[in-house]
Amino acid sequence: MGKVLMKGNEVIAEAAVHAGCKYFFGYPITPQSELVAYMARRLPEVGGLFLQAESEVAAINMVYGAASAGVRVMTSSSSPGFSLKQEGISYLAGAQLPAVIVNIARGGPGLGNIQPAQSDYFQVTKGGGHGDYHTPVLAPASLQEIVELTKDAFDIADRYRTPVILLGDGMLGQMMEPVEFTEGTEIRKFDKPWATTGTRGDGTPRTITSLDLDAESLEKRNWELQRKFAAILENEVRFETYLTKDADYIMVAFGTVARITMNAVNKAREVGVRVGLIRPISLWPFPEKPFLETRGRVKGYISVEMSAGQMVEDVRLVVEGHAPVDFFGRTGGIVPTQEEIFEKIMMAARGVTV
Amino acid sequence: MGKVLMKGNEVIAEAAVHAGCKYFFGYPITPQSELVAYMARRLPEVGGLFLQAESEVAAINMVYGAASAGVRVMTSSSSPGFSLKQEGISYLAGAQLPAVIVNIARGGPGLGNIQPAQSDYFQVTKGGGHGDYHTPVLAPASLQEIVELTKDAFDIADRYRTPVILLGDGMLGQMMEPVEFTEGTEIRKFDKPWATTGTRGDGTPRTITSLDLDAESLEKRNWELQRKFAAILENEVRFETYLTKDADYIMVAFGTVARITMNAVNKAREVGVRVGLIRPISLWPFPEKPFLETRGRVKGYISVEMSAGQMVEDVRLVVEGHAPVDFFGRTGGIVPTQEEIFEKIMMAARGVTV
Amino acid sequence: MGKVLMKGNEVIAEAAVHAGCKYFFGYPITPQSELVAYMARRLPEVGGLFLQAESEVAAINMVYGAASAGVRVMTSSSSPGFSLKQEGISYLAGAQLPAVIVNIARGGPGLGNIQPAQSDYFQVTKGGGHGDYHTPVLAPASLQEIVELTKDAFDIADRYRTPVILLGDGMLGQMMEPVEFTEGTEIRKFDKPWATTGTRGDGTPRTITSLDLDAESLEKRNWELQRKFAAILENEVRFETYLTKDADYIMVAFGTVARITMNAVNKAREVGVRVGLIRPISLWPFPEKPFLETRGRVKGYISVEMSAGQMVEDVRLVVEGHAPVDFFGRTGGIVPTQEEIFEKIMMAARGVTV
Amino acid sequence: MGKVLMKGNEVIAEAAVHAGCKYFFGYPITPQSELVAYMARRLPEVGGLFLQAESEVAAINMVYGAASAGVRVMTSSSSPGFSLKQEGISYLAGAQLPAVIVNIARGGPGLGNIQPAQSDYFQVTKGGGHGDYHTPVLAPASLQEIVELTKDAFDIADRYRTPVILLGDGMLGQMMEPVEFTEGTEIRKFDKPWATTGTRGDGTPRTITSLDLDAESLEKRNWELQRKFAAILENEVRFETYLTKDADYIMVAFGTVARITMNAVNKAREVGVRVGLIRPISLWPFPEKPFLETRGRVKGYISVEMSAGQMVEDVRLVVEGHAPVDFFGRTGGIVPTQEEIFEKIMMAARGVTV
Repeated sequence: MGKVLMKGNEVIAEAAVHAGCKYFFGYPITPQSELVAYMARRLPEVGGLFLQAESEVAAINMVYGAASAGVRVMTSSSSPGFSLKQEGISYLAGAQLPAVIVNIARGGPGLGNIQPAQSDYFQVTKGGGHGDYHTPVLAPASLQEIVELTKDAFDIADRYRTPVILLGDGMLGQMMEPVEFTEGTEIRKFDKPWATTGTRGDGTPRTITSLDLDAESLEKRNWELQRKFAAILENEVRFETYLTKDADYIMVAFGTVARITMNAVNKAREVGVRVGLIRPISLWPFPEKPFLETRGRVKGYISVEMSAGQMVEDVRLVVEGHAPVDFFGRTGGIVPTQEEIFEKIMMAARGVTV
Repeated sequence: MGKVLMKGNEVIAEAAVHAGCKYFFGYPITPQSELVAYMARRLPEVGGLFLQAESEVAAINMVYGAASAGVRVMTSSSSPGFSLKQEGISYLAGAQLPAVIVNIARGGPGLGNIQPAQSDYFQVTKGGGHGDYHTPVLAPASLQEIVELTKDAFDIADRYRTPVILLGDGMLGQMMEPVEFTEGTEIRKFDKPWATTGTRGDGTPRTITSLDLDAESLEKRNWELQRKFAAILENEVRFETYLTKDADYIMVAFGTVARITMNAVNKAREVGVRVGLIRPISLWPFPEKPFLETRGRVKGYISVEMSAGQMVEDVRLVVEGHAPVDFFGRTGGIVPTQEEIFEKIMMAARGVTV
Repeated sequence: MGKVLMKGNEVIAEAAVHAGCKYFFGYPITPQSELVAYMARRLPEVGGLFLQAESEVAAINMVYGAASAGVRVMTSSSSPGFSLKQEGISYLAGAQLPAVIVNIARGGPGLGNIQPAQSDYFQVTKGGGHGDYHTPVLAPASLQEIVELTKDAFDIADRYRTPVILLGDGMLGQMMEPVEFTEGTEIRKFDKPWATTGTRGDGTPRTITSLDLDAESLEKRNWELQRKFAAILENEVRFETYLTKDADYIMVAFGTVARITMNAVNKAREVGVRVGLIRPISLWPFPEKPFLETRGRVKGYISVEMSAGQMVEDVRLVVEGHAPVDFFGRTGGIVPTQEEIFEKIMMAARGVTV
Repeated sequence: MGKVLMKGNEVIAEAAVHAGCKYFFGYPITPQSELVAYMARRLPEVGGLFLQAESEVAAINMVYGAASAGVRVMTSSSSPGFSLKQEGISYLAGAQLPAVIVNIARGGPGLGNIQPAQSDYFQVTKGGGHGDYHTPVLAPASLQEIVELTKDAFDIADRYRTPVILLGDGMLGQMMEPVEFTEGTEIRKFDKPWATTGTRGDGTPRTITSLDLDAESLEKRNWELQRKFAAILENEVRFETYLTKDADYIMVAFGTVARITMNAVNKAREVGVRVGLIRPISLWPFPEKPFLETRGRVKGYISVEMSAGQMVEDVRLVVEGHAPVDFFGRTGGIVPTQEEIFEKIMMAARGVTV
């Protein structure tokens, strides 16, 4: 169909439809409402179902139900609404159900505002809900990348039987860019013998639950979950590096902030500062490799975030003191500018740490 | 009144009453229901109010309302119910409201079971809700310590205008021990000029909100919050060390697991292994000092948890590669035994890492 | 497909499907849960949608949404759950939306029990919700009649743009009888230019609402509603008479009670008592004609109900003092027996009034 | 305290406080929100409790809880919110719990508007909820009468263990008039041995429930309820007549409409038309006596209502065809004027029926 000009929120929705998602349960909240509206119009066209639930809590539990039946299903929200889904996400993880959950984050905490933010990083990567679980988190930086990662999100969800989070921010959701949807791409089919679609005469009732009152048995389940998480850590790391080979300083940024940071890196290169960029695409699993390869020789890392400093903790965990890890961030919905980041780089290059 | 034999859940409730808490909004869930039941009976006796809300979401928002009026207020739950409170906790943090929130954690993820667990560590320490915020987390290891820490929790809440989390596990909630409540202790009074109790003629309406549509203004608020968090990091760290001075190996454990681990440490000492214990009492702020003091000379740390490994990440963050950090855990509601931990110590002493 | 043996609740469901109903939103409650369960299995087979809502309140509002889109939609419940729908029914009536709402009534008031009852007569006929509205109410007495009346209910709903209530009791819902669904009957199609399915380029946005802040305008709407109700009173009266021509006494009964009463009438006829039966099939509009034709010459009417006396008020309203109106009822889920009713007839024949 | 100028909604609230009501659970809705706001401020002053619930459904169930504990409790709403309470009212009636429920009715059906209306007459008098029950309904016509009737409402509630409804309209709620609260009036105390306030050692647990799974037992309960309703019908009828002695025509009106009608009656008397007024103060029980005394000699009755005609049905029920019963009404929030009603009287006097 060639390139079309769309909003980020709409691209997520259309990419989900292209990935075979026919079910969406959600509740509108700025700045992700266009996604909900798009699905309301689009899903009936493909024989799917859109339902605006009574609340975020209702929506995530409907996702649980649909996922149990083995279909591809999505919900989406923005920060406060996403918090309301934490119990449900833990249930999905515990019951090993595939689903894609979108968080187009906004300024927080609390009601905050409707400007872009990345301050839900901890919530999505460390487990905002209770219990030992992780969810893969993918963070696209452009609308074209949304197309790919949304498809990947559904594939990862099905392959590992896990909820997968697609994390964007209000800027990504609202911006318009030309994108191309590859028609005719086959939707990867996953066998789902566990789905509660009837026993088809085999006499073995199927049960989807996260309840297990026997401690021995629940522990067994937990180690099984941990083995799955280990496999995801092994296979599903995604990142991009830019000019890191000879870099003295390495910037770390994800999502839209990575784009702005890349411009700042280019500008710094123009004035002779050897700086590079690591862009985590999967936030969990966090990409360790590019840090392990560079931590012995660089003069420092600078994590740039639209938060008061969250991903920087994961950077410190992998750098393990081999190099200084610095942070630059803006919060409350303020997007850092290229100039600010450039300035931060230059200060680092001059040996100034703030 | 001398020593009385009580259940852990009841001790939390009675300690809250002693701390001047007159308002409780909650919803029963095993294994913390005794706390709710105790408050239902007890609060009317002190002219207070108990209300069983429609849901966890309702309860945490009622806490928001009561806290806005400047009174001492508490809610409590267990893991799944606690997840439902994440949006509300972020609102409390954003609006800077003091409240004490109890989580008597159980096996997860999802419904899990009703056995003890520590697998909500990430949720309580990293921010289970959205936005840049932290909540102080206190983790008592005995019923007598509950008495002190519950009082501290209310004082910290009021001093910093912040929600404070009291984290226990099902074992702590259900066990019975003799405790003593010091009568006549004065309840620390905090001036609350911000409380929405009327303008008393000063003409300045008071507003409690976490909403701030202006990004500049919300960022200002966020840095203000960060300064508060820095002050808490500075002033409110609590921990206990045991035989760490000459230790080759240091165990790290909190809550009830720390008690079991201490026994294992004693047993290892008996056979000549020089092992100690760091017991974080505040989980956030995480106690860095005892690690910074020892990380240069010990042969290793072992974090023992009723989880698949969560606090161990905070240990690694502070140890920064200066010594190996190992982990031993049980999940799904299984409580590690003294023997298992002793065995783990002995394996470390023998140079075996698993 | 010939005759099939089914439960009453299932017959309602299958009859709805035959009437072109593809959408069902509900919540299980004894004694109507089989209806919900049947729809859950059946609707996907015809490309429809079944959704178990969070609550009765949620379900009726989903019905509002689906009806706004012009599709045939149903919900069902039993007495307490039906009460929860009162606000929603008033909204449907106010917004002039077609829908079929089933009440398989049980013993009340309050939680009551799960036995059959007719004590929701007032609620369904006088308007359980607020404001000036009526809903047509159809009360089948047999499973075969369910087939016809369910179809009629959808046709009346669409023709007059009104919610229609199908009232049964637990006995009707639970009993099994052979029924026949006429295949190939055409589903009557109604043009719905008001449905919010897009303007299709005509530039006139469609709005479905019961809100009208202007009093003049809302009064105009109300008189419009009243004209519609007058048309229903004119055209949609349904009843059956049995041996009323020469009757000295006329029994009045609806639903399953009418069947039992008919047997009692037969038995009384055998012993020479000239008694007949008026069976209202539409409860609103209440059938006045058979009363106006007989009130001048009969010795009395006896309303037999599974209630403490509700329909008897409508009988009195139409008889207007021209003959005595007596009542016999059982409540609390007790079904009156043929013998009791026969005895009541005999007492009347002997001139005894209780 | 002498006369004070207050709004009708506030008068209800203050009168409730004077009647010893210390508990209020509600949710704001125009045109009754002042009542909620007043209670929020006032109840803490008398050691009581105000709680704004999550919804109308929550509020009425909190009333159920408080009433079970034997305290005087109130909730209030306006038409749509009142519909949401129907399940709860049936539960209160079934469990025989005293409570006062205010409905300041507005234009309907559905959302309607926020203007005055009387179109919830059927809902309050015939039983908007399920099952065989009635609730006494009191309809004040002036603010001073509110003071008396609110007190009466609580006394009737306690005496008969029944929910009592206070029905007003938006005009009554919003108008201001000077009222006098008699200080020092003793609050009538009712013994409540059934209240769930502990067994006090008598070993007999108290249970408040409307559930009774045994049909025999539930029927017994129902006849017990019916006996109570009969006693209320006997003892609690309230009405006022005006110039009915020699009247050829009798107007029937309640609440604020009765005041306007009285003016029209006066005007008609001035031109020699002998017309009177019956003002039902209790709507259930509906006052039969003034009709039975006049139906044999008057030329007709005219029911004047802010509805499409609801009370007129009760007039017809008691007049039983002995005289023509006519109706005049305005709907949608329109208040009938004195002139319109006068005109209606004159048309009747001239023998014109519309």
